[in-house]
Amino acid sequence: MASDEFIARYRIETPYPVEEAAEAMAGEQSSGTFVDVPGETDSLRERHGARVVDTTVLEEVSEPTLPGTTPPADIESSPTYRRAEVELAFPVENVGRSLPNVMTAIAGNLFELRHFSGLRLIDLDLPASIADAYPGPQFGINGTREIVGVEDRPIIGTIIKPSVGLSPEDTAELVSEVVASGVDFIKDDELIANPPYSRVEDRVAAVMDVIDTHREETGKEVMYACNITDDLESMLEHHDAVVEAGGNCVMVSMNTVGLGAFAKLRREASLPIHGHRNGWGALSRCPQLGFDYEVYHQFFRLAGADHLHVNGIRNKFCESDESVVASARAVQTPISSSDDVAMPVFSSGQWAGQASDTHEALGNADLMYLSGGGILGHPDGPAAGVAHLKQGWEAAMEGIPLEEYAETHEELRVALDHYGDRR
Amino acid sequence: MASDEFIARYRIETPYPVEEAAEAMAGEQSSGTFVDVPGETDSLRERHGARVVDTTVLEEVSEPTLPGTTPPADIESSPTYRRAEVELAFPVENVGRSLPNVMTAIAGNLFELRHFSGLRLIDLDLPASIADAYPGPQFGINGTREIVGVEDRPIIGTIIKPSVGLSPEDTAELVSEVVASGVDFIKDDELIANPPYSRVEDRVAAVMDVIDTHREETGKEVMYACNITDDLESMLEHHDAVVEAGGNCVMVSMNTVGLGAFAKLRREASLPIHGHRNGWGALSRCPQLGFDYEVYHQFFRLAGADHLHVNGIRNKFCESDESVVASARAVQTPISSSDDVAMPVFSSGQWAGQASDTHEALGNADLMYLSGGGILGHPDGPAAGVAHLKQGWEAAMEGIPLEEYAETHEELRVALDHYGDRR
Repeated sequence: MASDEFIARYRIETPYPVEEAAEAMAGEQSSGTFVDVPGETDSLRERHGARVVDTTVLEEVSEPTLPGTTPPADIESSPTYRRAEVELAFPVENVGRSLPNVMTAIAGNLFELRHFSGLRLIDLDLPASIADAYPGPQFGINGTREIVGVEDRPIIGTIIKPSVGLSPEDTAELVSEVVASGVDFIKDDELIANPPYSRVEDRVAAVMDVIDTHREETGKEVMYACNITDDLESMLEHHDAVVEAGGNCVMVSMNTVGLGAFAKLRREASLPIHGHRNGWGALSRCPQLGFDYEVYHQFFRLAGADHLHVNGIRNKFCESDESVVASARAVQTPISSSDDVAMPVFSSGQWAGQASDTHEALGNADLMYLSGGGILGHPDGPAAGVAHLKQGWEAAMEGIPLEEYAETHEELRVALDHYGDRR
Repeated sequence: MASDEFIARYRIETPYPVEEAAEAMAGEQSSGTFVDVPGETDSLRERHGARVVDTTVLEEVSEPTLPGTTPPADIESSPTYRRAEVELAFPVENVGRSLPNVMTAIAGNLFELRHFSGLRLIDLDLPASIADAYPGPQFGINGTREIVGVEDRPIIGTIIKPSVGLSPEDTAELVSEVVASGVDFIKDDELIANPPYSRVEDRVAAVMDVIDTHREETGKEVMYACNITDDLESMLEHHDAVVEAGGNCVMVSMNTVGLGAFAKLRREASLPIHGHRNGWGALSRCPQLGFDYEVYHQFFRLAGADHLHVNGIRNKFCESDESVVASARAVQTPISSSDDVAMPVFSSGQWAGQASDTHEALGNADLMYLSGGGILGHPDGPAAGVAHLKQGWEAAMEGIPLEEYAETHEELRVALDHYGDRR
């Protein structure tokens, strides 16, 4: 890759010859228009045109995945739809060092082009000239580990449930049960932010009281990701309220606040930012449309996310394990330098049962492992819930089968009976 | 609708009984978790639970649109997939008066639920308590009309092409050709924002010089939507640079800057905001996934968009005319009051040929009608390009067939030969 280019890779589906379709993409996203106009000179095209770097033809299908495609006029019989991977290179000069404008260049109107019955971004390679213009994670894996004092295993956490409706006092009461169990991390659900019945400043004060007391009694710091998602100015005020209350993490729904507000928060923030990706399914669930997380998350990571949700192996949602693992690996892969990696957050239907596969897939334990029902729903209570997760990860990291480890670990044994039977 | 609720309507596709699927949606987006937990009491559910208002069963299909669904365990034969419309009501109390949190409530994780092989938001009804917490458009239809002095027809505009690569001086030279032709509105392409070869402050100064001279000579004000899309702070600086240069409009790529930064710009802005929706295809192109624009655009409109792109009839992209018309009508429909309507922007492959159908579909001419190649590519030059568009709209508004009107209008006749043959 030339240092003055950024490279995007796509999986497309098209009734056109792949080369022609690729050239249409490059033209649409740089110097093209639907009729020739004066001013589109050869020298302009050479300096500013996007470039087709590579095309790789994949399988053919007889039915288009997405409607709206107009096959070439010269095709007389039923068209076939070719899938292919296409790599385009864009001049950095076209956008400057601006992530929003990188997004417009690589995505923009492409999804709506009639050439395509499928178009999905599957890879993005940003040069240092763009990546280094953004601060990236302020705490990342190491900074987060330092806060909670956990070095050699995943950060074990839970989500406050029910998602909505608990008052600050109810929340604090639940948190006091949970911290007593040895959990490292607690987060709000994405559905509770700053509602009238549980304002951020009241909730964080109540929760941090519990966490402070717990620290004083045990020496153990628990991280609380307080959901501050809101309009920008309110979000910044919530951040300050969390700092004021002695809080140690803020959570943001990345897609609902958007890249600009998220990046602004990072530049003002003094706490780790826990990036929740709710809404992501709209951009990803159709396999031939939208984004792979390997591409999409880079924007929020460079903008400053310390923790990035990646779903979980055998999750309760519809994402494949393969996709989950690829996302988590991407979050741990440097873009410009090792300082810009973030901590992948595994959640959704997680219990000890997925620890071994998760560890094997990543080759490390630099992750958050969140369990809502898996902790709060343990038959013997939250303390047993947390204990069973730690036991599950001990087994995974030592390469001991779960069933075997459960013979000498009661909480794990109970969980195996309880969650194992349910799945 | 109770004033303390917001209502979202979905089209779903599911192998589950529709009522059961609808209840799963309501539970997931309010008080549910995947195992029962203490604290999810009846009274909490009653106060905070989302409510299924209505379900309407539509057709059945034999193949799921989206992969990843897990059919009910008790189905022995091949499942069928029912499509249905589902309406849910959410307590305002769950989110407060916060659009980002409304988005998380109505969309959030729903797209990823295993119950669904399709889930799309098709309608949203927000109460005044939420809508009125946002400023909405600052200029809207009337304010925009006042600036350019056009009362009784669409605002005719064009897009500067080539999209990328023109220096400020080249841009200004092209603008001087275009303003001479009688156009009301000129916009940057979404692909040019603040690149090193054409900084916003330089470009807007060069362009406004031309527009100022034109005003002094003719009394005619031309609106120039300068693309200020960027990181938030840069975007605010660009806005101020546009004001400083005597500019009269800013353009923003809504999806790439995101809702939070867009809303912040509106609160600081003294100029109309032209909302470009590039990237929209990722959220909309699969008919069983994502959003209808009727839902999605409301967020940016309440946040403050004055102009909202809606594609165009017989556009060069793959969106149906039905969808384009529904979008444009929605943009003109009040959410809380008539002050919050915005101006729909028709573009993409537009020339006089779509004027009549566009006028008929909307029942008014309160719109922008943008033509890139249709003006700059007119065989007789930009002046003839603009003239043919005005003639096309005169014909449309007077109910005269285009061919007939062309008999006495040369520029329209040439355009009919030129663009008509190409289509």
